[in-house]
Amino acid sequence: MILYSNWRSLATYRVRVALALKGLQPEVVPVNLQANEQRGVAFRAINPQGVLPALDDGQGFALFQSLAIIEYLEEAYPEPTLLPQGLGARARVRGIAQIVCSDAHPLIVPRVREYLQQNAGLDEEAVLAWVHRSLRTGLHAVEAQLAGSPHTGRFCHGDQPTVADICLASHLLAMQFFKCDATDFPQALRIFAACEALDAFAASHPLRQPGAPETM
Amino acid sequence: MILYSNWRSLATYRVRVALALKGLQPEVVPVNLQANEQRGVAFRAINPQGVLPALDDGQGFALFQSLAIIEYLEEAYPEPTLLPQGLGARARVRGIAQIVCSDAHPLIVPRVREYLQQNAGLDEEAVLAWVHRSLRTGLHAVEAQLAGSPHTGRFCHGDQPTVADICLASHLLAMQFFKCDATDFPQALRIFAACEALDAFAASHPLRQPGAPETM
Repeated sequence: MILYSNWRSLATYRVRVALALKGLQPEVVPVNLQANEQRGVAFRAINPQGVLPALDDGQGFALFQSLAIIEYLEEAYPEPTLLPQGLGARARVRGIAQIVCSDAHPLIVPRVREYLQQNAGLDEEAVLAWVHRSLRTGLHAVEAQLAGSPHTGRFCHGDQPTVADICLASHLLAMQFFKCDATDFPQALRIFAACEALDAFAASHPLRQPGAPETM
Repeated sequence: MILYSNWRSLATYRVRVALALKGLQPEVVPVNLQANEQRGVAFRAINPQGVLPALDDGQGFALFQSLAIIEYLEEAYPEPTLLPQGLGARARVRGIAQIVCSDAHPLIVPRVREYLQQNAGLDEEAVLAWVHRSLRTGLHAVEAQLAGSPHTGRFCHGDQPTVADICLASHLLAMQFFKCDATDFPQALRIFAACEALDAFAASHPLRQPGAPETM
């Protein structure tokens, strides 16, 4: 199993955590985002979209898109599970994961920030305001789900980590990275702390990957 | 079963198609996006995020986020299936769906366009350029998957419609809506035509919903 990874990619962080929670140890092949290696011919032969992550698990092509990869891992390596029992519970967990991955994170990735600055003419401060607004709007939506539900436990759903926690943790890492205030989201912060206390999350942290700087 | 819907919401379109493919006929409750009803107190009691779609299927809370709802439908009402057999095949289909839902569509929703215009100071033309760029980049990524894979058939994966086709169709509807050229994406257009030939897609079309105008 080969994971194409970069310390900075939060979508790849999500896959790293899922792999770690399932006790899987892929070979890690670093892709140099600073040098735009992900957009080059060689990497596009692996993932035509030219983005991270990609996971080769012998299926004849490299798997792509973090949540699709995590659903694959869940089906291929079911234990321990990253989805709760019960149809409604699974829908709630997937819904929280999608708020992060489909509503918030896409707005702040490098290719979007670059477009806003280079093509749309926003200055650095306006781009940062955009990023903060996107991150806080996304976390507000997650916090509303967490605060309003009897199913919220030590983690987003009950007392075991799920794909919702993986996505929430990636979101809070983004907020740390962009120095975006999250202090008014107590449920999210509490659950993020519970995640960070687990080895699988801690070992997957961006700053603990090859090529990472000492601090963000 | 209650579907909270608006003719214009493409995320809701995706859920409508999935329901129709599975032969499910929910009660449809319209939510007035023009009047921002989705952001009001009454609707936030149904979906705290204040966005469409939401589906109440007696789980004690309304399901949210289109792909999470479709995964729920797949588990609760497995036939006909919207995911292919085989772990790699399912990962490919989910990956294509995620390219649309996690990389492209989030960039063009009304709340983002409003922010760019009202807060970031982009004029109408610059917002449209942003929308076109986002739509074409997303479709480029999907087309690369379709053109480069032996698994592409009449539909994105083989000859039965899956969640990938649902998402691709929603993407091409967005491109029609914003008058964005898609003629250089032949695989996507061919599959979109195959989708539109199916009753489930045709009946779910935005312009065939209550409150829709006669043309886009």
